[in-house]
Amino acid sequence: MARTTGSHSDITGPRVRAAALRLFAQGGYAAVSMRAIAAEVGVQAGALYNYTPDKQSLLFDLMQGHMTDLLAEVPETAGKPALDALHDFVEFHIRFHADRPDAVFIAYMELRNLTPENFSQIEALRRRYEDHLEAILQAGAADRVFAVSDTKIVTLAIIAMLTGVNTWFRSGGRLSLNEVVAQYWDMVRKAVGAG
Amino acid sequence: MARTTGSHSDITGPRVRAAALRLFAQGGYAAVSMRAIAAEVGVQAGALYNYTPDKQSLLFDLMQGHMTDLLAEVPETAGKPALDALHDFVEFHIRFHADRPDAVFIAYMELRNLTPENFSQIEALRRRYEDHLEAILQAGAADRVFAVSDTKIVTLAIIAMLTGVNTWFRSGGRLSLNEVVAQYWDMVRKAVGAG
Repeated sequence: MARTTGSHSDITGPRVRAAALRLFAQGGYAAVSMRAIAAEVGVQAGALYNYTPDKQSLLFDLMQGHMTDLLAEVPETAGKPALDALHDFVEFHIRFHADRPDAVFIAYMELRNLTPENFSQIEALRRRYEDHLEAILQAGAADRVFAVSDTKIVTLAIIAMLTGVNTWFRSGGRLSLNEVVAQYWDMVRKAVGAG
Repeated sequence: MARTTGSHSDITGPRVRAAALRLFAQGGYAAVSMRAIAAEVGVQAGALYNYTPDKQSLLFDLMQGHMTDLLAEVPETAGKPALDALHDFVEFHIRFHADRPDAVFIAYMELRNLTPENFSQIEALRRRYEDHLEAILQAGAADRVFAVSDTKIVTLAIIAMLTGVNTWFRSGGRLSLNEVVAQYWDMVRKAVGAG
């Protein structure tokens, strides 16, 4: 990717990504022009091409960045009992997603707008994250702490349930995020037969 | 809403809605023009206004139609034990949504593109559907068949989990829809403490 060197691009690159994230989340990728992103950043449309070759690259960068952050921050499971590892995963997933609603919205909604090559790369990262949870479920099933038959389906069901929090949670609402985590942990624990 | 009378509009109205559904699901509401919808139907752009006053009305009609179908078809619970009612809800939700992926995608993704008045109406319909499930959970909790503390949260969690099936289920894949229903019912039953 063509980038200018020095402090200007170091500052402008993140501002371009933040502006694209905001606009894509508001209006949808297909409806947002490079010109609109430039206007949001406060630069000429031509200047944007110092930071990104095109709109598709911006979308891919945002989705890839979201997934690599997710994978970098997911708690280590090595040496943990499966029930503790599952609890830590549930709490991490809810908190990580609640912190970045725009990135999560785009990560789910704009998959259809990725080129096939970019889609494959994002899919591979999503699968690595799913595999992380599935490994916890498999370890717990092997130890007979969990009663789950199809660990793949249980993985997808738990992730969908937890990500759903983003559609209704508002900080300052009826429940604190701590209370939300406790409620979802109670459901997940029971759902895997560790009730 | 202005509509011409007679057989032409009776046929063209559903074709307009079907074309709008397809294009909104593919490209996103904001990126689709009335001209593109007319071209998909095979009529002049001007002719479209015989069937719908504007694009917002088309989006609202699609989302309202989806929700009223959902509410019309959700199984009756009167006289059923709570566990049976919950099972019937789980099976209904998965099958209804698996049958209409485009309408479901739009129902979730395009909420941001509704006018505030239209959003309120769709929200009210969604809440009626949620209330239906919550009433089942409350009845089961009252009968001590279910162990759920916050029935609202459990309602939202179950709906998110079940709707998530649409993101990965493909007919002809590893699992039949019957098997998917059985797996999710097993998780939901356990999650509400009726395991």
